[in-house]
Amino acid sequence: MAYELYYWPGIQGRGEFVRLALEYAGADYRDVAREGPAGMKALLTGLEAGGRPSFAPPYLKDGDTVVGQTAAILFYLGPRLGLVPEGEADRLWIHQVQLTIADLVVEAHDTHHPVAVGLYYDQQKPEALRRSAEFRDNRIPRFLGWLEQILTRNPGRSGWLVGEALTYADLSAFQVVEGLRYAFPKAAARALKATPHLADLARRVGEDRRLRPYLESDRRIPFNEDGIFRRYRELDG
Amino acid sequence: MAYELYYWPGIQGRGEFVRLALEYAGADYRDVAREGPAGMKALLTGLEAGGRPSFAPPYLKDGDTVVGQTAAILFYLGPRLGLVPEGEADRLWIHQVQLTIADLVVEAHDTHHPVAVGLYYDQQKPEALRRSAEFRDNRIPRFLGWLEQILTRNPGRSGWLVGEALTYADLSAFQVVEGLRYAFPKAAARALKATPHLADLARRVGEDRRLRPYLESDRRIPFNEDGIFRRYRELDG
Repeated sequence: MAYELYYWPGIQGRGEFVRLALEYAGADYRDVAREGPAGMKALLTGLEAGGRPSFAPPYLKDGDTVVGQTAAILFYLGPRLGLVPEGEADRLWIHQVQLTIADLVVEAHDTHHPVAVGLYYDQQKPEALRRSAEFRDNRIPRFLGWLEQILTRNPGRSGWLVGEALTYADLSAFQVVEGLRYAFPKAAARALKATPHLADLARRVGEDRRLRPYLESDRRIPFNEDGIFRRYRELDG
Repeated sequence: MAYELYYWPGIQGRGEFVRLALEYAGADYRDVAREGPAGMKALLTGLEAGGRPSFAPPYLKDGDTVVGQTAAILFYLGPRLGLVPEGEADRLWIHQVQLTIADLVVEAHDTHHPVAVGLYYDQQKPEALRRSAEFRDNRIPRFLGWLEQILTRNPGRSGWLVGEALTYADLSAFQVVEGLRYAFPKAAARALKATPHLADLARRVGEDRRLRPYLESDRRIPFNEDGIFRRYRELDG
């Protein structure tokens, strides 16, 4: 039976981390809310109904199993899609990397929404300018530097974050690099100059023949100013 | 061998979610950085050294295994401390609840640090006032309402979030209720009036005879204005 992904239809957002894993693995899946109004209604109903409602999208249905929280979805899918090695310790470490990437995603989002998700960007622009400066100068280098360190300390020197082969954490690292390049082209370029192994990982994922068809398809929603990574020129620098 | 918890010594912070689990289970553990300067040095060294350094504390050592990220630590400890039931689905759902509580913790922290962790509260007070209003009016009720919903939809009506017995997610729910009551006494009281099952859960955890000795000991660091939950009168209302 096909996996069912439930996520907002107009943005990459957090759903994209799950999409990349499903697409890379060639999994059979439905992107339910993008199928039309009935799909969107199903997404909202799923948030309200049942004994185990997710707090927010994305959530994934696999038969009777429903899993929410991006990192938990990937932890669930990893072994099923062949995107993690065997062994509890490695799988937990990959999950830990993913959770740290999720922390970076929250901070990237909050650069344009430092006050309230319920307000527009224009209603919190002075705050956004201050928060973005901090994010550019301190947080991007710190997070990307951490990923660089993991790459260089991987004993296998495989070019991947964990172990000998690509895992979902590598796909997610690619995605945040792409997102940062979109939203903060200048700051991202500076940070990536200091993290060449990470830049190389992102290049290899982007050119991968299993992922390339997806990235070039219209299933890949373009970055836009409704998503997590938004290009507001005044926030970069 | 005793578990080793590594966390900042002067605050409850994220480490407290791990401490509550260890204490409730009566586990043998060291709170390394609180043992003195050598412990603090070990915490910092652990962040830099090794092939799998955590991005930030807390992290846990169990023999050769090192796990970082609060929710991942609890996912690892849960089965070992007898704080989760059997079964992948239940354990993943408990983890999902924990990850959502972690999202609430980030937002609670950002009420007093909406711009930059590297700046003092006084340097971001106007932003903090705006962000706190949003947090009080919309986010606290939404998060606590979600926990209330889970409690009332638990088919076992056990009074616990998942299944028939207390899990680490219940301890964490207690902790955020305590934290919100400390930081936002008025707003928390309002929200908890609308979430009576959650208020009752927090009361039962707080009175539990396995936890009470810890809560009354000096191992329980008092809430303070260096931690995540801070009482700044002007941010409540």
